[in-house]
Amino acid sequence: MSINQAATASVDVPRGLAGVVVTDTVLGDVRGFEGFYHYRQYSAVDLAQSRGFEDVWHLLVHGELPDAAQRSAFVARTAAMRRLPDEVRAVLPAIAAASGRSGPLAGMRTALSLLGAALGFRPVYDIAADRRRADTLAMAAAVPTLLTALHRLGRGLEPVEPREDLPHAANYLYMLTGSEPDPEHARAVEQYLISTIDHGFNASTFTARVITSTGADVAACLVGAVGALSGPLHGGAPSRALDTLDAIGTPDRIDSWVRGRVLAGDRIMGFGHAVYRTEDPRSRMLRGIAQRFGGPRVDLAVEVERRVEAILAELKPGRELHANVEFYAGVVMELCGLPREMFTPTFATARVVGWSANILEQAEDSKIIRPGARYVGAPAPQPVPGW
Amino acid sequence: MSINQAATASVDVPRGLAGVVVTDTVLGDVRGFEGFYHYRQYSAVDLAQSRGFEDVWHLLVHGELPDAAQRSAFVARTAAMRRLPDEVRAVLPAIAAASGRSGPLAGMRTALSLLGAALGFRPVYDIAADRRRADTLAMAAAVPTLLTALHRLGRGLEPVEPREDLPHAANYLYMLTGSEPDPEHARAVEQYLISTIDHGFNASTFTARVITSTGADVAACLVGAVGALSGPLHGGAPSRALDTLDAIGTPDRIDSWVRGRVLAGDRIMGFGHAVYRTEDPRSRMLRGIAQRFGGPRVDLAVEVERRVEAILAELKPGRELHANVEFYAGVVMELCGLPREMFTPTFATARVVGWSANILEQAEDSKIIRPGARYVGAPAPQPVPGW
Repeated sequence: MSINQAATASVDVPRGLAGVVVTDTVLGDVRGFEGFYHYRQYSAVDLAQSRGFEDVWHLLVHGELPDAAQRSAFVARTAAMRRLPDEVRAVLPAIAAASGRSGPLAGMRTALSLLGAALGFRPVYDIAADRRRADTLAMAAAVPTLLTALHRLGRGLEPVEPREDLPHAANYLYMLTGSEPDPEHARAVEQYLISTIDHGFNASTFTARVITSTGADVAACLVGAVGALSGPLHGGAPSRALDTLDAIGTPDRIDSWVRGRVLAGDRIMGFGHAVYRTEDPRSRMLRGIAQRFGGPRVDLAVEVERRVEAILAELKPGRELHANVEFYAGVVMELCGLPREMFTPTFATARVVGWSANILEQAEDSKIIRPGARYVGAPAPQPVPGW
Repeated sequence: MSINQAATASVDVPRGLAGVVVTDTVLGDVRGFEGFYHYRQYSAVDLAQSRGFEDVWHLLVHGELPDAAQRSAFVARTAAMRRLPDEVRAVLPAIAAASGRSGPLAGMRTALSLLGAALGFRPVYDIAADRRRADTLAMAAAVPTLLTALHRLGRGLEPVEPREDLPHAANYLYMLTGSEPDPEHARAVEQYLISTIDHGFNASTFTARVITSTGADVAACLVGAVGALSGPLHGGAPSRALDTLDAIGTPDRIDSWVRGRVLAGDRIMGFGHAVYRTEDPRSRMLRGIAQRFGGPRVDLAVEVERRVEAILAELKPGRELHANVEFYAGVVMELCGLPREMFTPTFATARVVGWSANILEQAEDSKIIRPGARYVGAPAPQPVPGW
């Protein structure tokens, strides 16, 4: 059994490349045992508590938080990129019509692919770093426009043109509904978006970096990442946690419902994470945001979280299963008026910035990412039978 | 410095994952030191010499060469999938118009993404193996239709509707030109296509498998693979080898041109390969095909190959630089009347079958591919400065 790299010895690693270090990065990290994650040198939660989305976007793609002048310039620059080229706008109704069955991320995949081509993107190794960054800004700035237009077209509504005078998050909500959002809603969504820009070396981020390593253009990299995010094992579904709340209905039904599910061997949606062995720091922050709004739905969520954690600790001791980002993300997005089918697209709106930073970092490397496979089939060659 | 996988120890591996075994496969292998590659248990070159494209397609996605009845059924089934849904056909002019600057693979990326959505593809883990295979067949069957339509639309020509009575390769040439191809041209292109269906665990194949491992739909996987193939470090450009022939012009100029390039430190396009340390078996086969046609262009190519190898052996001893698949692929495609801008898309027409087989194999696994990165930036957390 050979491996298809003539010049390199075969290296055995854990299944799914778990724990395999593919690259060095200065973009951030997740410390699963500490319940802590960061973008560059700053706590992601601290950033979400104290900064605007554009500040953190600038931090990721430019390497530092902007000063006041940089901030103004960056906000103006990205706001001007929200409007779509006419040749893309013209095709959105057809994309919306075709994508209904495969979902909004399939529509986003197609529209981003078209946008990159319409903007004449070139291979990342053929262009300077400034041009690459500009390409990522153009894509990330346009994602809310694309997503909200596809969403509205799918419901027989006219798309709402972007406004340049609103911050990124507020403009997203504005384009979705057609009315200027409540400032508290806009800020809550902005904090959610900041908290989910990046989160270590997940499968979509890795996909973006593999494609970048071939020298493909920024659109090819992002479209691949959107594809990976659309996988249920990766992108998940914040709306599933709401399904849990809906199924439980009232606080008195929590214990019987949860015990029934756990004893039947079912997962409780919104609980447990591949990396965190503590409370998910995103969950903690989002709970705080939800509690700013309050109300019976939030009270139910908090009580469900408390009881589920207690019951899981009792029935699955030592597993450290806590509410994950999906749980309160769904609650917060619902409170802010986002429809459930837009929960994962909203997540993608933020994550495209993390992918962008990873693409820019990967493009500074010149080594293609090309692992191998081990052939374990029948011995070859065998004679080809006649027709 | 931590790694973003809480539960797994960090594993250090060669840069770019070179030689790292990601998976077991029964699809085939490349033996770089032997100058041999195979699809399942058969030599790929033997298959190209003795079988039709649909036979090998069946071998890859069904696991065995078809018998006569299976062959008829498979040919009929895939031929019926060549025609595009109306909602996709309607958008092709807009995709062609938008993709001009980024090239035909950007158009293919967008059109395939749209087609998958229009066909209502579902996540691979949510559907049975037969449905997954059908999804890959629908995509691979439609690729020639998409590519030729986009090519013709970009030149102000009407797309040519597919014919179900022609084999896959002949129908591709027919849709490109609008006239039934010379049988020798159709067979030469068919042999080229067979020889390039798969070739070990390259970056686009790996991309397709990473996306598959998230459970995304078949279109998401293929669109990501097309993106990776569009990278100059991966997809290359068979047309560049023709540029070499054009630049040399006549046999008497070979030595001075080649020596000049090598002494200037330039690569000779069409020579050298990451895996083969011998003659590239695809190159050998394609040379034979070119020589079936003969003529001054082929004579020049053969003489250039002979002299380049001799001069490289002299000036770069021990490097084993031979003509690669690009060199004679370009010659053969030119002989068969394919325009240069369709060389890489033609390659993609075949490779989509290899990606398909890899997607189907990966979907039998349930483990997400998720490596890690090593944070090497400034220590975190540092306090977030005020606005």
